[in-house]
Formats: sequence, C-alpha cells, structure tokens
Amino acid sequence: MIAECNAQSSVLLTDLYQLTMLQGYFDHAMEENAVFEFFVRKLPSQRNFFIAGGLEQALSFVENLRLTSEELEWISSHRAFRPAFVRYLEKLHFTGDIHAMAEGTVFFPNEPILRVTAPLPQAQLVESRLINLLHFQTLIASKAARSVLVAPNKLLVDFGLRRAHGAEAGLLAARASYLAGFAGSATVLAAPLFGIPIFGTMAHSFIQAHDDEIVAFDHFAHSLPDNVILLIDTYDTEAAAEKVLRLAPKLEQEGIRIKGVRLDSGDLADHAFKVRGILDRGGLKDVTIFASGSVDEYLLEQLIQKGAPIDGFGIGTHMDTSADAPYLDCAYKLVEYAGKARRKRSEGKVLWPGRKQVYRSYDDDGRMTGDVLTVEGDVREGEPLIRQFMKAGQRVSAGESLHDLRKRALAEIKRLPRSLLTLDHAPNYPVTVSEALRNLAQQVDAAQFGSAQTAAEQKTVLTQSCNP
Amino acid sequence: MIAECNAQSSVLLTDLYQLTMLQGYFDHAMEENAVFEFFVRKLPSQRNFFIAGGLEQALSFVENLRLTSEELEWISSHRAFRPAFVRYLEKLHFTGDIHAMAEGTVFFPNEPILRVTAPLPQAQLVESRLINLLHFQTLIASKAARSVLVAPNKLLVDFGLRRAHGAEAGLLAARASYLAGFAGSATVLAAPLFGIPIFGTMAHSFIQAHDDEIVAFDHFAHSLPDNVILLIDTYDTEAAAEKVLRLAPKLEQEGIRIKGVRLDSGDLADHAFKVRGILDRGGLKDVTIFASGSVDEYLLEQLIQKGAPIDGFGIGTHMDTSADAPYLDCAYKLVEYAGKARRKRSEGKVLWPGRKQVYRSYDDDGRMTGDVLTVEGDVREGEPLIRQFMKAGQRVSAGESLHDLRKRALAEIKRLPRSLLTLDHAPNYPVTVSEALRNLAQQVDAAQFGSAQTAAEQKTVLTQSCNP
Repeated sequence: MIAECNAQSSVLLTDLYQLTMLQGYFDHAMEENAVFEFFVRKLPSQRNFFIAGGLEQALSFVENLRLTSEELEWISSHRAFRPAFVRYLEKLHFTGDIHAMAEGTVFFPNEPILRVTAPLPQAQLVESRLINLLHFQTLIASKAARSVLVAPNKLLVDFGLRRAHGAEAGLLAARASYLAGFAGSATVLAAPLFGIPIFGTMAHSFIQAHDDEIVAFDHFAHSLPDNVILLIDTYDTEAAAEKVLRLAPKLEQEGIRIKGVRLDSGDLADHAFKVRGILDRGGLKDVTIFASGSVDEYLLEQLIQKGAPIDGFGIGTHMDTSADAPYLDCAYKLVEYAGKARRKRSEGKVLWPGRKQVYRSYDDDGRMTGDVLTVEGDVREGEPLIRQFMKAGQRVSAGESLHDLRKRALAEIKRLPRSLLTLDHAPNYPVTVSEALRNLAQQVDAAQFGSAQTAAEQKTVLTQSCNP
Repeated sequence: MIAECNAQSSVLLTDLYQLTMLQGYFDHAMEENAVFEFFVRKLPSQRNFFIAGGLEQALSFVENLRLTSEELEWISSHRAFRPAFVRYLEKLHFTGDIHAMAEGTVFFPNEPILRVTAPLPQAQLVESRLINLLHFQTLIASKAARSVLVAPNKLLVDFGLRRAHGAEAGLLAARASYLAGFAGSATVLAAPLFGIPIFGTMAHSFIQAHDDEIVAFDHFAHSLPDNVILLIDTYDTEAAAEKVLRLAPKLEQEGIRIKGVRLDSGDLADHAFKVRGILDRGGLKDVTIFASGSVDEYLLEQLIQKGAPIDGFGIGTHMDTSADAPYLDCAYKLVEYAGKARRKRSEGKVLWPGRKQVYRSYDDDGRMTGDVLTVEGDVREGEPLIRQFMKAGQRVSAGESLHDLRKRALAEIKRLPRSLLTLDHAPNYPVTVSEALRNLAQQVDAAQFGSAQTAAEQKTVLTQSCNP
C-alpha cells in the first residue's frame, strides 16, 4: 500500500511515459550520458524578469531517488512492465551531475537555470518532478519579487495557504516568497520546515464568536499580550478603531500594549487614513496599521502612490496562485546524448542545443546591462551564472541557507536595470546568443537534416530565438 | 524534527492565527458548538457553475486531526503559547459533525457545500486546510467539467503534473479531473492512490536520443508492444507519419499493432487532417490520433467545430492551474455560535447567517430549473443537496467510490439547464433566498446592531446577496 503522505518524495510522482521510455532505454541498453536543461521559453506579458527558485527541493529529490518496495510492487503489477526491467529499477538511483543558477538569481527566457548530466534513464526519470519543483517556486518567487519591487520598505507577509493549490503549494509559496524578499508567512509549518518567520493575529470568527467586539479585543489582548494586533473590520471599521482607543488605556494599566490593527475589506486607503487619524488623535501613534484582502502588487503600488498610512500587508491568493500568470512556459529538454549535441525542432518550440553557460555584465553602478548565452567552455566577459551543485550524485557543498539566498535575491532585485523597475511591460532585457552557440546549432541541424533543409530552417530558428 | 514528507497531514499546516485564537478561546473557556460553512461567493466570469470536490480529503483530514509530539514540542517552543494551552492541545481531536454536498454535485454562489458543527476551537483549527482542500479540487473539477461539456465523446486525459503547483496539486488535479469526467491521468501515482486509469506514451527526448526517428519508433514498439502510440512531431509531423506507414507492415508481421500517433505542436487541426489522410491512404484507419500541447476547453471546442479528426486529448497546464480563473472567491465562515446565528458585515463581503440547506428543482426532462437557499428545517420542494457525512467525529457511512462520484458528476453535467451548456458567460442560474433565511438575517442584524442601523444596511445585504 502506497501512503498518500509520502507522495511528494515518491518516484511514482511522475508521468507514465517516463517509465515506458525507461523500459525502452533498458531494452536497447541506452545508458550513455544525457544532458537535459531546464529553462523558460518566454516571459508572460506581466513579467519582466524571473527569479530562480526550487533548486534546494530539486537537489533533495534527486539525492533521494530510490523506488521503495511498495512502488516496485506496483510497477510489477502493471502489465506494461517486464520483470527484468523491474529488477533493473530496483537498483536505480541518481549518479549524475547538476549545474544550476543559485536560487534567488534573476534570469531571462532561454537561459537554463538547471542542467542535469546523467545516464539517460536517470536524467529522464527525474523530468516530471524536477519541472514541477523548479516551475512552481520560480513562478512564485518571480511574482513575489514584484511586490518587493514596489514596496521595499513595507512589511510583506505571505497569507496565501488557504487558496494555494494544495499543501505543498502553500508551503513552497511561503518559501519562495520569503526567498524573494518577503518578511515571512502566516503558514505555521513554514517555521519548523524552512525557518521562516511567521505572523498571525485573529480572524473575523474570533470577533463574531463574542457578543461584543470590544470584549473580543480585550480577550485577545490578554491571551496574546506580546502580539496584540486587532482585526477591526468585522462590522464597522472606524467604530472599531474608536473601541481600540477606549480599550488602550485600560490595557496599558495592565502593562499590555496594542501593537497594531488590521484592515481586511473595503477601500483600504480610505480606511487607513481615517483609522490613522482616529489612532493619532487618541495618542496611539505607535499602533501600526496592517492591511490584507485581495492585495497584489498592483493594489500595493496604488496604495503607496496614494500615501496610504499602512505599515504592512498580508498578500495571499494573488501571489500564491500567481493569479495574473499562473504558469510559466518552461521545459526540460535533451540537449546532448552520447557526446552529441541535440535539439528538437517542433514548430514554435525550437531550442538551443548543447551544454550552456550564461555570462552577465554590469555597469559602474552595479546594474545588469546584458547577458550572453553561449556553450560551456566558451569563456566570455562578465559573471558566469551557472555553477556545479552536484557531482556523481553528491552535493558539492553544504549549500547556502535560505536566509542567505534571500539576501542574494534582494541584492539582485536592486541590480535590475532601471528599465525593468516597473510593473508595466518593459522592453526586453538584452540576451545575446553567442556565435559559438549559433554555430553549434547549425552543425546539429546539418547532421540531423542535411545542409539544404538547414538553410531554410535556420531562418525559423533565428526568428524564434531569444535575441534575433 | 518535523519531516517535510508528512506536511500534508500536519495540523501545523495552518495559519498562525488559528493557534493564537485557540489560546484565546481556551483562556476564556469558549468551547460551545460553532457552525462554520464553506461556500464560494461568486462565479469567475469564465464559469457558469461549480462542481463540488475535495470532500473525501477534507473528511480524512478532520478524522486524523491530532497533534504529534514533535508538533506539540514546536508549539511549546514558541513564546506566544503557554504550557497549559499546549497540554490542552495534546488532547484535541475532532468530535463534531459534517454536513455537505456530495462530490460531483453542481452548485452555485452562496450555496454552502460543507458545514462543520463542532466545539469552537475544533471548528476553527481546521479552517485553513479545509479551505485549501475544498477550494482546489472544486476549482479543478469546475474547470475540467468545461472540457467534458464541449467534448463528451473524446478521450480526455490529465497531462498537468509538471506545471501543477506542487506535488499535491498534481495528484489532486488528477483526482478532480477524473471526478469531473476525464478518462484518466498521465500521473503514475494517481493509479495506486486513487485507482485512476493512467495513460502514457513517449517524450521528444526518446526520439532525440536516437539518431534516427524511425529507429526510435521501432524500439518503442518492441518495448511496449501493447500500447504503441508514437509521438510524431519532433522534427516534421507529416514526414514522421510517412515513417509510421513504412514501419506498420514490418511490425504487423511480428504481431505488433500501432495503436496511435500523438501530435504535440503546431496547428493541431491542420496536422490532424494531413496525418489522418496519410494514415488512411496507407490503410491505417484504426490508428488513432491523440493531441496535446496547450490544449484547453476553448481550443477543444474550436477543434471539434472544425471537425479535426482527433480521438483524444492530453490536457495539462491550463487545467491543472485553472489558468483562466486560478482561484475561487471562497470562504469558511462562522454562521452560528452557542446556539445564536451570526454573520459578518464587512463591506462587500456580507454572508447569510445560520445553518443552511439547498433545495433543487428539475423540469420534466430532468434538467435543473432553480435552487432555493434556506435555513435548515425549512422544508421546501425539490431535492435537498446537503446531507450528513460525519457524526461526532465518525463517518456516517463508508462513502461512495471515486468511480461512483464520477458517474454522479457526469449525470449532473447532463442535467445542467441548456442555457449553461456553453463556454461563454451565461445568464445566472436562479438561486432564490427563502423568506425564512431573510428573516433570520434581519433578526441577527437587529440583535447585533439595533433595528435603525439594520434597515439602512439591509439594502446593502440584499444588493450583495446571490439573488437580489
């Protein structure tokens, strides 16, 4: 019996075709080294850059890649798979290398953020889950970075668990948004799992379960005296702010300080101005205002432009589902097998062959000026972004803490070109494809199709490339 | 140490405020019965109805609601929580009742699909994860039903694991789409976990790893002789179809039949017509055509209107992320505490108080004609949709199989009013709020605010209700 609780580490968390292909590779002894790269094909129209995320979970997944006896038994029971193949799977584990961009790195379309070099069956088998892990955290970190971009001085907290797409989405959204510069999350489990600071106050139900709002405030303050943040929009926001004024001196006598109030509905700017006025008039200048309720980076920017006196924001559904761009057009593609560079040529989905490296240049202010996408070994000016993380199935170093990765991401966001410091659609960041890579692509096509066809098709390739 | 692999069943997979509120309830002995209901506030503009999903996982979650010693230890270590409260949590488990609509039931805004009746702390603690589970499967089942609606006679397969938002999203999307009428999924683990039929063929990398496409086809056919479906778009779709023609007689001599081909890029209708022509000309009339690649219900409808000769579809990213409506405006709200009906009155987020029931009427053809939303006990004509699933923490019956739930959903889709049989925005399905429920709302407001305020606010309530 396979238990649901181990689903996220199960090798069977994959597409059936990975197993059918593996039987094909097994039958024909196709076990030479394959190189696959993960990249995103294009920017959604509401994004100007990506933030790499998910590498830690990806490394952990391949490190632990082993079929359990229950899983092997299930495969044996499926009529498509033969006993000799199942015996082969019994011993399968990951012995390959992984090169990648560190999490928190800014990247652009067609730049690989992860490369797997391993015997073909291993590199193939990990495909579905690697994409699943890298795609989601990259999606969320890239979305969260936009809030960080427009509100660098506000307390930003992930509130999205309830409408995230399942348990893992909620947890990894907490991680990815923290990586991108959020202060923390409301999700409790994110603290013990990832060491993320957690935040929380009260829900409307707490107020409603009391017959009187001010009694609810008083109860809460006595139960959580170190973190008194009161939700004031259950019935009438400004009336509740007046109640906070009445309650504050009484609590103060008992040594309890009201730390903040939270707004969760209505016109947040309008309420914030009014509530700030009420609190200030009552001498509660230190009581902060925290706002939530359908907040995303667009609303955040508006509220900041209006000068709304809000100190922190809970950002939930829109971020945890990346609602304005809920997926990325990403792929994990074979670029080399048995020492030969390869590329797929399906219409509209052309890719660059071979093992690649990305070099990034900066201006005197330290801002990014452009990238070169080239073949590994073609050393160029600038900072190489891809380095080795795993060798022969083992991590090459202990890895940075999430806290350090977050610092990198915050630094990267500060180094974005000025043209990308906007929520609007910006001109493409320059990514140049090197001559060496173009030449390799031509060689691969000539070997695959013959030179006549190549000439005609080359045009298509260039049109569809990241930097024509 | 809390292990990541048990995250989905952890009680700490919740918002911090649930724990802080629980300490408040504990301190003030607020343990009387509370009633919470889960509902969706409104239809996204791209949806005309919802399909209820996620109840099985919700029941399983509350059944197993216990804090482990590691989780209790973590709570103890958090400075907000006192030892007496942690000792109380040690014994906490779910002893309440659950009423719900069966999974696969069609429902509309403001109709509760789940009601929890339990001591306040229990009903409160389960909020975040219950919403997380019910929201996601309802989201995906409601999206998948649209493909079933436009293509009832096609083989529809979930292909979405790789871009689903994490592991659980991939698995539960397989379940929710099967529930809504899909034939199965490509996700292997969905078979042992949920008994869902799984489907799979080959990826482009299998073709690319061979120097010659026809050799790749031949290898695959010999390794998976019972399920030979060949991916023909890696280089040139029609040229590959010609190779299939050349290979077929050779395989036939060995007793291997080519079952189908798969298209994954380009203009699917155009390629399908050409490939069908090539296959038919070569006598391969029984070889089916399966298509994938950015397919959603809109493209599906177009392809069917064009008469594209495609027998089945792999539907992935757009469905598993519900890309055109990636979340629902759902809520889990306190409607009664300690025997008194309650409702929250925040701006723009008004709800109906009390325990509710939904009655549905049908015309002579068995098609839905309208619902009545009323208080429990106000017996009306029609079919009551909400029934008891759990009593005092125990399930009241064994529950239907996923297969039976799927049959219900398919039957429900057939009973939709004709006006809703479209992907376009349709006029609202009639949901009438009963007089009994309106009266209860007025009583609650009068008790809460006094009658003067009630009269003014009642207008708002009616404007914002599901059926003004």
